[in-house]
Amino acid sequence: MSTINSAPIALTGDRPTGPLHLGHYAGSLQQRLRLQDEGYRCFVMIADMQAYTDNADNTAKIRDAIPQVVSDYLAIGLDPSRTTIFLQSAVPELAELTMLYMNFITVSRLERNPTIRDELKLREFERDIPSGFLCYPVSQAADITAFKATCVPVGGDQLPMIELAQEVARKINRAGGREILPTPKSLLSKVTRLPGIDGKAKASKSLGNAIFLSDSQKEVKDKVMAMYTDPNHIRVSDPGQVEGNVVFSYLDAFENDQEKVEDLKRRYRAGGLGDVTIKKELISSLERVMMPIRDQRAANDADYKDIIRQGSQEAREVAAQTLADVKDALGVFSI
Amino acid sequence: MSTINSAPIALTGDRPTGPLHLGHYAGSLQQRLRLQDEGYRCFVMIADMQAYTDNADNTAKIRDAIPQVVSDYLAIGLDPSRTTIFLQSAVPELAELTMLYMNFITVSRLERNPTIRDELKLREFERDIPSGFLCYPVSQAADITAFKATCVPVGGDQLPMIELAQEVARKINRAGGREILPTPKSLLSKVTRLPGIDGKAKASKSLGNAIFLSDSQKEVKDKVMAMYTDPNHIRVSDPGQVEGNVVFSYLDAFENDQEKVEDLKRRYRAGGLGDVTIKKELISSLERVMMPIRDQRAANDADYKDIIRQGSQEAREVAAQTLADVKDALGVFSI
Repeated sequence: MSTINSAPIALTGDRPTGPLHLGHYAGSLQQRLRLQDEGYRCFVMIADMQAYTDNADNTAKIRDAIPQVVSDYLAIGLDPSRTTIFLQSAVPELAELTMLYMNFITVSRLERNPTIRDELKLREFERDIPSGFLCYPVSQAADITAFKATCVPVGGDQLPMIELAQEVARKINRAGGREILPTPKSLLSKVTRLPGIDGKAKASKSLGNAIFLSDSQKEVKDKVMAMYTDPNHIRVSDPGQVEGNVVFSYLDAFENDQEKVEDLKRRYRAGGLGDVTIKKELISSLERVMMPIRDQRAANDADYKDIIRQGSQEAREVAAQTLADVKDALGVFSI
Repeated sequence: MSTINSAPIALTGDRPTGPLHLGHYAGSLQQRLRLQDEGYRCFVMIADMQAYTDNADNTAKIRDAIPQVVSDYLAIGLDPSRTTIFLQSAVPELAELTMLYMNFITVSRLERNPTIRDELKLREFERDIPSGFLCYPVSQAADITAFKATCVPVGGDQLPMIELAQEVARKINRAGGREILPTPKSLLSKVTRLPGIDGKAKASKSLGNAIFLSDSQKEVKDKVMAMYTDPNHIRVSDPGQVEGNVVFSYLDAFENDQEKVEDLKRRYRAGGLGDVTIKKELISSLERVMMPIRDQRAANDADYKDIIRQGSQEAREVAAQTLADVKDALGVFSI
């Protein structure tokens, strides 16, 4: 039996490759909190199986990151009673759906996927792509459709992934002659891609250039004080550049009073505003964001394994029903 | 915990794409009966997930064939109390293992697989290979290793599949620093590749040129009488050709008294032996094989779904332990 619920269902998630940082917060975590508050049925997946596709030789990194990510989720305010937090590998139905969907998606279709093409370059896989990596968009289509997600919050670079999930949904629905799976829509998020504190485009744990949601007040302060600004802004009186200046990128993302930010930018450009001054401003802005996260983390005494176990059990129940619906639609033998 | 049992463990199976025929019997079913009698721990898999990889648009064929294949297994004497007969799709641990293994096997490694290359040509997939089809050797490696099979009876064309399973076992063992999975050995079977009754190389249901294990006495008789012999053997007195003569291929495979067969060949070559005579000989030979199969089928009152359910439950218990061992070896997070 298939029930297409009218309440919007959202699937989001993260590859657990390290603790979450302010880039995640600005880009997607805040949006998830909004969806949770707006009454969406939210599923948040810790995508460990997906993380293994390019970390098969470094599983310790994934294993260690999983508790960190759960802790970050709870600290920012994801509420397990409203949002199902689950572990991808703990829902075997996702693997089963992936295997079924792989029969409908050709190799050349996957090789044309622009996200895969970009990531292949990034990872320098060339011809030695693990087959699991080539096929991970099919696995994503399984994740999305398993929960009958109607919307998937994504950045623009992830749109080809959603298109593949839509294609899978259409094929299954056509095979079943009825709507088994809703066609998922992408919820394009205003991409706030935060640079690393060193000015590099990507903030990550391995580069050591991210401010983590779990950083202490002192760590935040030290990282902000070490932030890349304008290398030609030598004396306070020199005119400074705002573009590419990491402090201003973070102020844009985290200072509530954007008029104040515009004023700071104007004075910085004119000359007469020191780096230390703008960094102190940023430290206060970030503390307003991070203090409640830190408090929530300290107050939380839930066992992270319990959270995952319970969420994954909830997720399995939904996914098992979808798997049964899909098998039925495809006419797969069932015992 | 991993236990490498000293009793040999054999995995075999069939893609359920139609009822089994005499070609299956001569090629592999007889060998399975021998393994069962010799005390091997036997797992016989109905490979429906594998069959779907090139039949996604024709699942009815697979669905209908599954009961037929179970019925054939029981009729030839596979004994569910000694041989675990199970359905691939009913063991989700196989999908989970496949997904894990896919991270260790590259796309180019799969594209080089000679069996895949041949089958691509046969199926005229060219660039439109379903990704599930490209990856089915990984799925086979999962099937083999899930039951810690020490030997896999195969024809020579399947050797690259076993090599891939061996490679997977080595990689998992290296990752775990101990022997988690035995390295499976191929048990090369004397390939008795029976031609179709029309003389075509391949006997199959769709070509309508196979003698099925479920054929009635009359059907067997009619098919033998219609068999391709030597088109130049017009009159009984003409010398006849034995090579390419389907009746002699079947006599070679099924007549116990091979001296008699040699005598018939000699007389056929010399001229003076009619097609009807050799066909009548073959009908008796086949009846000696097929009568007990027919009797066993008539006597069997087991519900085929019960057989699959119970076998699949047994199979799941073994595969779940292997999956736990493999996850442990790889350092995958477990809840």
